[in-house]
Amino acid sequence: MTFPTVGVIGAGQLARMMAVPANDLGINLVVLADSAKDSAAQICSHVVGDYRNIEAVLAFAKGCDVITFEHELIPQPVIKELERQGVKVYPRSESFIYSQNKIQMRKKMDELGLPNPKWQVFDGGGTEIAFPLIAKTPSGGYDGRGVYVVDSLAQLSELHKQIGVPLLIEEKLKFDYEISVMVARSPHGQAATWSPTLTVQTDGICTSTVTPVPHLSKELLVRSQEIALAIASGISLVGVMAVEIFVVGEILVINELALRPHNSGHWSIEGSVTSQFEQHLRAILDLPLGSTQMRSRWAVMGNILGAEKADMYRPFLHLMARTPALKFHHYRKDVRPGRKIGHVTLLGDDLLELEEEIGHAVDYLSGAIDE
Amino acid sequence: MTFPTVGVIGAGQLARMMAVPANDLGINLVVLADSAKDSAAQICSHVVGDYRNIEAVLAFAKGCDVITFEHELIPQPVIKELERQGVKVYPRSESFIYSQNKIQMRKKMDELGLPNPKWQVFDGGGTEIAFPLIAKTPSGGYDGRGVYVVDSLAQLSELHKQIGVPLLIEEKLKFDYEISVMVARSPHGQAATWSPTLTVQTDGICTSTVTPVPHLSKELLVRSQEIALAIASGISLVGVMAVEIFVVGEILVINELALRPHNSGHWSIEGSVTSQFEQHLRAILDLPLGSTQMRSRWAVMGNILGAEKADMYRPFLHLMARTPALKFHHYRKDVRPGRKIGHVTLLGDDLLELEEEIGHAVDYLSGAIDE
Repeated sequence: MTFPTVGVIGAGQLARMMAVPANDLGINLVVLADSAKDSAAQICSHVVGDYRNIEAVLAFAKGCDVITFEHELIPQPVIKELERQGVKVYPRSESFIYSQNKIQMRKKMDELGLPNPKWQVFDGGGTEIAFPLIAKTPSGGYDGRGVYVVDSLAQLSELHKQIGVPLLIEEKLKFDYEISVMVARSPHGQAATWSPTLTVQTDGICTSTVTPVPHLSKELLVRSQEIALAIASGISLVGVMAVEIFVVGEILVINELALRPHNSGHWSIEGSVTSQFEQHLRAILDLPLGSTQMRSRWAVMGNILGAEKADMYRPFLHLMARTPALKFHHYRKDVRPGRKIGHVTLLGDDLLELEEEIGHAVDYLSGAIDE
Repeated sequence: MTFPTVGVIGAGQLARMMAVPANDLGINLVVLADSAKDSAAQICSHVVGDYRNIEAVLAFAKGCDVITFEHELIPQPVIKELERQGVKVYPRSESFIYSQNKIQMRKKMDELGLPNPKWQVFDGGGTEIAFPLIAKTPSGGYDGRGVYVVDSLAQLSELHKQIGVPLLIEEKLKFDYEISVMVARSPHGQAATWSPTLTVQTDGICTSTVTPVPHLSKELLVRSQEIALAIASGISLVGVMAVEIFVVGEILVINELALRPHNSGHWSIEGSVTSQFEQHLRAILDLPLGSTQMRSRWAVMGNILGAEKADMYRPFLHLMARTPALKFHHYRKDVRPGRKIGHVTLLGDDLLELEEEIGHAVDYLSGAIDE
């Protein structure tokens, strides 16, 4: 037995952040990148290749002890072929499908007796769900992409015609807020959750998170973790997963699943004894999971979205002086409007102060506050 | 202004651990390695070259905005030539000399009015210091190498003849314990210390540390930090430095300086808001220093020393299950007896429990406890 090699398909910021605990643990990490300029490829051993190409992925996998993913775009036939050839792949194709296909996910949640919103597949014809409703493309959407608010049957039919595949339609919930529960599970069934996280969305993109969720009752806190654990077990998850949940009064409704490290878990890098990235590695290697205890009362994370400011280095001069405890994570991606190019995290006891400092940092980095 | 490139001369575990905050901050890091198999070279952009060769170092420096060191072996003429050619090098040669030459260091401490043991240079002849005394080669020693306990003048003269250079001789103190104060300072003079650390030595090698130092009086705690800050300012330090200090009753005596991240500061990776590695980068880039607040009441670190066990991966199965909060750092160096090949850290409130768990982990990793 020696230190294994983990192959990550995808080389964005999630793979980049996975490299840190890999280095600490002594685990070799190699990423399959679209380009040597990809966020993770800049700092990791990497192979440039097309994740949709079975031959390329098989060649990549030859040098690895286990394969995992940092995004949902890898075609099922590619994953299944890896499995057929005996490559260890986590999460497994039959689990990963619930991250890739929202209709399959809804069916599975029903089967597991877990709380879905009202939903149906729309492939023309009528709908039993009242307008306005939410229509989603089954695959490929994230950060609000592929999600539509639809006001009428005519609009829905038009959208369906444009997109050309059956749509998932769901009731439009008047939710109080949206939370995320990160959960990890290993092949032999050990599972662990972190404290639930409040995710603050702006135009469908998560802009900040607060952990634990303020004002969440003990009952809902426990219930949300039970749901995450039930899904993890029910879909035979291996790795980490984000379960996004709507809180509607005293009711919890599952929104989406992401079977990978997730933006809503970034706070765990500093805020938890074991980060989601380390836990993902432990899980896919079938190592005992680490403690998910928080290192502080509160952890607040703010996403840095690309805006007008192109230089992300110079702001250190102000922000490090103002907030000496602020932790920066720059992904070294080209700055494009609305693109997640980094995040900042702050831990502490005074939630209002943390939110203020994170808000200031994010505004300053985006240029919303002038220098 | 864009993200700068830091060049580190040396590619051991210190450079490897410096890569983590560099990646987080978005700073490019490249190491000058003896071999592509060096600890840091395995996971970093690297150039293979001889740090004693001025041409090689100058070529390496061409691609960097600032040059720093992870060991003391770089010849002064090499550093001075970099400086002469306008390369930004931190620490500066005139500061770094105190890390490289123990006689120069003693002179400087006297000059600064800081507490030295009784010392003199021995170049034959007699000595005013009583035997047994400590004799040290002025340069090149660490982890107990180059340090001798000498019982008589005859033995000292013999040693002097063997080594062939003037020796530093010091009184052999009956100290209660040895502590280390890490301190950082930036070019414009901002300085910060961390909580003093108890360093437990076995055969001259640091085997574990406890932070903060248990039972250290508030007065000595403050005094030790004052000494570290006075040295940092007095030698115009840029970067981080370990000040090793003997505690003799209520008296503090300076033992050694190391102008680089140091084993006694490894606890800060998890235990402090800003680790020594991140702080070193901030300092040499003249960025505002980060908070050195501790993340927990206690931080205990244990060094993994190479022993009979060759496989450092398999022990994860036991240790991660036993101590889910234990943090591992493997340097991926070949296992050789007595060589530092990794370390483990544990944070918490109960010092006895932390020491027990770290002790167990270290014993298990070395094979002292059978599986």
